[in-house]
Amino acid sequence: METSFTNAQRAEVLTAALPYIKSYSGKIVVIKYGGNAMVNEQLKQQVMEDIALLWLIGVKVVLVHGGGPEISDTMKRLGKEAVFIDGLRVTDKETVDIVQMVLAGKVNKDLVNLLQTKGGHAVGLSGIDGGILEAAVKSEKLGFVGEITKVRTQPITDLLEKNYIPVISTVASDRQGNVYNINGDTAAAYIAGALEAERMIMMTDIAGILRDKDDPSTLIPHITVEEAKKLYDQGIICGGMIPKVDCCIEAISHGVKNVVIMDGRIPHSILMELLTDEGAGTMVTKG
Amino acid sequence: METSFTNAQRAEVLTAALPYIKSYSGKIVVIKYGGNAMVNEQLKQQVMEDIALLWLIGVKVVLVHGGGPEISDTMKRLGKEAVFIDGLRVTDKETVDIVQMVLAGKVNKDLVNLLQTKGGHAVGLSGIDGGILEAAVKSEKLGFVGEITKVRTQPITDLLEKNYIPVISTVASDRQGNVYNINGDTAAAYIAGALEAERMIMMTDIAGILRDKDDPSTLIPHITVEEAKKLYDQGIICGGMIPKVDCCIEAISHGVKNVVIMDGRIPHSILMELLTDEGAGTMVTKG
Amino acid sequence: METSFTNAQRAEVLTAALPYIKSYSGKIVVIKYGGNAMVNEQLKQQVMEDIALLWLIGVKVVLVHGGGPEISDTMKRLGKEAVFIDGLRVTDKETVDIVQMVLAGKVNKDLVNLLQTKGGHAVGLSGIDGGILEAAVKSEKLGFVGEITKVRTQPITDLLEKNYIPVISTVASDRQGNVYNINGDTAAAYIAGALEAERMIMMTDIAGILRDKDDPSTLIPHITVEEAKKLYDQGIICGGMIPKVDCCIEAISHGVKNVVIMDGRIPHSILMELLTDEGAGTMVTKG
Amino acid sequence: METSFTNAQRAEVLTAALPYIKSYSGKIVVIKYGGNAMVNEQLKQQVMEDIALLWLIGVKVVLVHGGGPEISDTMKRLGKEAVFIDGLRVTDKETVDIVQMVLAGKVNKDLVNLLQTKGGHAVGLSGIDGGILEAAVKSEKLGFVGEITKVRTQPITDLLEKNYIPVISTVASDRQGNVYNINGDTAAAYIAGALEAERMIMMTDIAGILRDKDDPSTLIPHITVEEAKKLYDQGIICGGMIPKVDCCIEAISHGVKNVVIMDGRIPHSILMELLTDEGAGTMVTKG
Amino acid sequence: METSFTNAQRAEVLTAALPYIKSYSGKIVVIKYGGNAMVNEQLKQQVMEDIALLWLIGVKVVLVHGGGPEISDTMKRLGKEAVFIDGLRVTDKETVDIVQMVLAGKVNKDLVNLLQTKGGHAVGLSGIDGGILEAAVKSEKLGFVGEITKVRTQPITDLLEKNYIPVISTVASDRQGNVYNINGDTAAAYIAGALEAERMIMMTDIAGILRDKDDPSTLIPHITVEEAKKLYDQGIICGGMIPKVDCCIEAISHGVKNVVIMDGRIPHSILMELLTDEGAGTMVTKG
Amino acid sequence: METSFTNAQRAEVLTAALPYIKSYSGKIVVIKYGGNAMVNEQLKQQVMEDIALLWLIGVKVVLVHGGGPEISDTMKRLGKEAVFIDGLRVTDKETVDIVQMVLAGKVNKDLVNLLQTKGGHAVGLSGIDGGILEAAVKSEKLGFVGEITKVRTQPITDLLEKNYIPVISTVASDRQGNVYNINGDTAAAYIAGALEAERMIMMTDIAGILRDKDDPSTLIPHITVEEAKKLYDQGIICGGMIPKVDCCIEAISHGVKNVVIMDGRIPHSILMELLTDEGAGTMVTKG
Repeated sequence: METSFTNAQRAEVLTAALPYIKSYSGKIVVIKYGGNAMVNEQLKQQVMEDIALLWLIGVKVVLVHGGGPEISDTMKRLGKEAVFIDGLRVTDKETVDIVQMVLAGKVNKDLVNLLQTKGGHAVGLSGIDGGILEAAVKSEKLGFVGEITKVRTQPITDLLEKNYIPVISTVASDRQGNVYNINGDTAAAYIAGALEAERMIMMTDIAGILRDKDDPSTLIPHITVEEAKKLYDQGIICGGMIPKVDCCIEAISHGVKNVVIMDGRIPHSILMELLTDEGAGTMVTKG
Repeated sequence: METSFTNAQRAEVLTAALPYIKSYSGKIVVIKYGGNAMVNEQLKQQVMEDIALLWLIGVKVVLVHGGGPEISDTMKRLGKEAVFIDGLRVTDKETVDIVQMVLAGKVNKDLVNLLQTKGGHAVGLSGIDGGILEAAVKSEKLGFVGEITKVRTQPITDLLEKNYIPVISTVASDRQGNVYNINGDTAAAYIAGALEAERMIMMTDIAGILRDKDDPSTLIPHITVEEAKKLYDQGIICGGMIPKVDCCIEAISHGVKNVVIMDGRIPHSILMELLTDEGAGTMVTKG
Repeated sequence: METSFTNAQRAEVLTAALPYIKSYSGKIVVIKYGGNAMVNEQLKQQVMEDIALLWLIGVKVVLVHGGGPEISDTMKRLGKEAVFIDGLRVTDKETVDIVQMVLAGKVNKDLVNLLQTKGGHAVGLSGIDGGILEAAVKSEKLGFVGEITKVRTQPITDLLEKNYIPVISTVASDRQGNVYNINGDTAAAYIAGALEAERMIMMTDIAGILRDKDDPSTLIPHITVEEAKKLYDQGIICGGMIPKVDCCIEAISHGVKNVVIMDGRIPHSILMELLTDEGAGTMVTKG
Repeated sequence: METSFTNAQRAEVLTAALPYIKSYSGKIVVIKYGGNAMVNEQLKQQVMEDIALLWLIGVKVVLVHGGGPEISDTMKRLGKEAVFIDGLRVTDKETVDIVQMVLAGKVNKDLVNLLQTKGGHAVGLSGIDGGILEAAVKSEKLGFVGEITKVRTQPITDLLEKNYIPVISTVASDRQGNVYNINGDTAAAYIAGALEAERMIMMTDIAGILRDKDDPSTLIPHITVEEAKKLYDQGIICGGMIPKVDCCIEAISHGVKNVVIMDGRIPHSILMELLTDEGAGTMVTKG
Repeated sequence: METSFTNAQRAEVLTAALPYIKSYSGKIVVIKYGGNAMVNEQLKQQVMEDIALLWLIGVKVVLVHGGGPEISDTMKRLGKEAVFIDGLRVTDKETVDIVQMVLAGKVNKDLVNLLQTKGGHAVGLSGIDGGILEAAVKSEKLGFVGEITKVRTQPITDLLEKNYIPVISTVASDRQGNVYNINGDTAAAYIAGALEAERMIMMTDIAGILRDKDDPSTLIPHITVEEAKKLYDQGIICGGMIPKVDCCIEAISHGVKNVVIMDGRIPHSILMELLTDEGAGTMVTKG
Repeated sequence: METSFTNAQRAEVLTAALPYIKSYSGKIVVIKYGGNAMVNEQLKQQVMEDIALLWLIGVKVVLVHGGGPEISDTMKRLGKEAVFIDGLRVTDKETVDIVQMVLAGKVNKDLVNLLQTKGGHAVGLSGIDGGILEAAVKSEKLGFVGEITKVRTQPITDLLEKNYIPVISTVASDRQGNVYNINGDTAAAYIAGALEAERMIMMTDIAGILRDKDDPSTLIPHITVEEAKKLYDQGIICGGMIPKVDCCIEAISHGVKNVVIMDGRIPHSILMELLTDEGAGTMVTKG
């Protein structure tokens, strides 16, 4: 990271980015950010820097985040033990309160804060604000785990129009005011779909879809929904890849043009994906 | 609360409110809400109902909130003990993290949620979002207790323009991204001043300024800044009244037209103050 | 009318109106006003007060008025005798001149004047202004009695957009500049239809549709167009009710969502209808 | 009026008007119209045609009208006799009602109607509508004769912005709703001043300011306010000319750039004044 | 041209133009100007005067021009000889450079300059600016003679919205930046079609479509596309008329409402056509 | 130019540009381009690429160009010999015609064409279009050499608002339509001043201001107007540097914030100057 470039080299790189900048200018890109890429502080700084840069050059970035480890930490510190029924984690009222507090109060504002220090203008929202995410009970047994019943994009597009980066934490509410914990990937897919985003980027801790899950050199750079479905049948999409790819397919079915699963642990992977000819991870498209 | 009115009576009340509605239509009113009025769940519901009503009839309400008891509760539950130096509470990094989490994640989103269920359109912000509140260390000894160095009203007016009720929790940051706990009353005064608000309402647990602090019948309904200063000298403004009145004077010095200290424990006191000829509490004006 | 309410009671009434205010906010409501409700000066004041209130809280009110008694008075004073052919009143050039003068010059400006003193911003128009109502001869024998051939809503919506209450007197013209007297109820139905109004209110001197025309307790609060047609056949809708109900059905056929026939002699009946849960008179809806 | 032109001649005339059209494009011109020019039906048609043409080519015309003869006629027909105190006509409540009815209902709507048939888009207002003219009693003895205390141009500029020709009849009201008869020339001067009009045109039945009042060839084509004041002293401005010139000076003192007194009995005198190099009547300017 | 008119006559002519002005107000009219009408300096001045007048009274004029003689002159002066293959002129790189230079640099800016001195606000563009005209090679043999493959109206409508007269020279480019010479009539037809112009006017040096090409009295004032096609078969449309009529039919097929072939050598023929009842030349309409 | 970068390196460079992009976002930068930097085709491509990139990331670039060598070439080819009086070149009518033709038709459209192929949206103007540059004779002896008497920025800001890159060739006209040749550097200074540009960049064929004109290592990176004036006196600013520095001082006196003289022969020098921390050439500021 200490490379020293000549001015000519800098100019060359900037110029090479021109066609990519052009193609994303004014377009909506939803970035799902969470998990391990979020844990490493330096990586988090770089991701926020990348997002601030994209915003500055005219991309309409919407950042959707989860916050796994911080929730668990806080629950543990509060002496709240996880409850399981039939092997599934139950979200009681106290738990959903903690989830809301950590996601909307800690993780969300920390990301907003970072974006601001990097030169972006960011406003943090939760699915509760302006009624962005309306949800209902998914399964009585699981308590306040919600499934999305309605997405109101108005507050998001209002903020985009005013030139802010909306940062959204994935809690939702119903009309009675009950709050629900929502799966972050699913929420991002719904939001990206409702916004008819040009692209959705899922920052994960896997390299993308691999033909051989243990060999990064077998990365599939581009795949259609139909092809992906075949890879399920062949058992190639397996394990932790399954929910990620499911979510890509869901986003595309909601109207997103293409979805990229990318390894958030690689520095500046977002910029590589959007502003260079190499790309990163696996892109899933309709057909 | 179970009174039954005839339709004619209802109409009469509504009509009587006409001139008051007219005089606040399109004006900015900042409401500082916190403390005990916030503890009682039924009162909180009524306050949010009042705010939703004001918003609906065209008042541009900005809600600034604190959250005292919930912060203490969470700190206690997290086993975080308050530290004092020379009798003053110290806010270390861990404490300010908890303050941010509780205010911006729990109290803020709960208020937004209530406003939404009452029919308002609300978006919750903290002083960090869009750089609304910039702060600096007040005293090295006290840690992350901030004094406000800059107010950016743009994110607030952007939301007002898009017809949302901005709900603001009083944490701030500096340009390096450090977060500070800010006194809620002071923050409200700064924000109301920067917005050149028509009126600021401080919902407290005192009836207003009393000539005899133990006799509610000695309430002073209206007072100028100059008159107030005399009452300090005479010892009439004393005890818990002092910071409240200080804050009123500060808000007026920042450009607010008038400030009302009102008893938030009285049901619907906001509506009484704004939409009836009687008013509530003590109004402080410039001169 | 001298009831004295506590502040708490006032607040309770105001709060109870919240959901109704919300549902009409930004919606177009056309009020047809005329006849006896207009004769009583105190009632007229109250109706204008109600309209100013509705306007203030965000309802887009359009007031369409007739002016029966004042026209007859002026004609009598000018020594102009009514002429009848086959029992039908004939409107000659001189008569239509008087109608125009009284409606557009006297009644219209008096209503505008009252609305202004009540705090509303009102602009008075006739069907001639901006070509709002274009008409043709209905029957050669009847002279300048017109039937509407075209409604131009542009001048009305222009005024609504500029936040005025349009007050419209029901004379029309053809492209040669001939002026016609137009039936007020019909004109209101056409205008409400062309505006695709949320609701049309006909302020009459009957209580609504009664099962037994002599027993107010037999008021039918809600009826569909189809049900109304049956009541014609059964002779229940009869006499003076017929043209009123005809007009409701016409308005609905032109696109109005629902029409209420209401007794304009009851104080504040408009507010009762729109802002309370009881309503007033008979509401006619499509089906 | 039966001249036959070749196409080339027509084109020549149109082209010659180009610089004049250019200089008035988008500018506000207030035309005061009344008295004898209004009596002749053919002349009235031509004046309205001229105004419609000016409007079409981009001049922002505001038409202020009186209605002398029609008021007297109607009063006579209604058996209302003029009352004089110390030689001055008294306007009682009944008289001002008639004035309002005739001006706002008959004369105003007739002019609007004519403008519409000539292809213009016109909306008729009175000084009551939107509170354009606020007035107070001029002299207790004279009853409802008003002097203007406030001009609200908002309703006029709102209509100009929506591309209508505002046609204004000169009655006014006070905040209690009392209606006043206002001198038409004075009202036009106030309105033109408040609008900071580019030009005000007074259509009268005199040729302009004459050095010898009996010799039209002594017309003074251009005069400054200062020069005019000298002509008063010299007795050259005398008789019926006095109030007209007074009114010009008043308009200029209120901010109008220049005022033209013109003979409204000459066909198309407005077009001659505005669109040819000869002009018509006497132009009064500041200095 | 030295006729002297009375003011009354001037006014009469102006008034007579009112309905025509009204019908073109705000409409797009594309004028193709070139060839001999452009050679005569006095005529050119008049045409620009006419266009400035039309623009001033609210017509949205788009001027498309060729520049035949000036191109030949410059080529001759530069010692560039025309090359022919199979009797067709070849446009090599050097020739298209000269065409671009003369059209976009000399003819275009001269017309803009004239329009500005006549009081219009004009901006000169070529088909290259903002990518208005995209072209491809028509025939390898002919070199840089282009056929239009895409019309981007955005730069034209942007300038119309900002109230300029767009003046367009008919060179085009492809995505590699090669420049092509485009036939002026064809370019005008494409542009008028893409703008869905109300009317296209082709200023030529023929009187219009004549039944007997040697007898101007046999001018056909109005013809449909279908009728025109019959005249081809009958040999009545022949010689130089053929490409003109072809072009009219092409423009209509692209969406223009009607096209007029007019004799640009007649002074002020544009004004005669648009603002009088006689018209000029032959109008071609769809059916 | 064949360097190969890793993705990580590309990302690093892009990220490093963030603060610079931020500081120029939405700001007007006027670039004066001409002379030798324009002769080299590859350099010209790079300059246009740089401008397209700046435009894309939100800088409001205005390109002002001269065209020296191409004018001389064309004059020679047209057999037009330069005439000198007292050693000064004379611009007769024929010469200014050639200048207009070459600048506005050849050089201007070639630059527009290049910008379009690089992905920018560009519109070419001359000082004649929309009356941007109004000029008068500088010295009778020199013929049509103009000095600027008025700058109308409206056409430029209209195009900036519509998101085009205005490309301006430096010919001007007077109100009679005479065309003048204008010194390019002076025109750029006037335009930049009238636009109150954030920065003006003069692309020349000198490295900047050198203490020793033969030693590039003596480049002065930053200088104030006052300091520059001292360097004149000391003879350090001399020869070809004088008119360049004069022009910088002129631009600053017209309101430009700072002006940079830069060596246009260095590849991508614009990007280096604006988007890196090193800058290029000499920056002149007010004080």
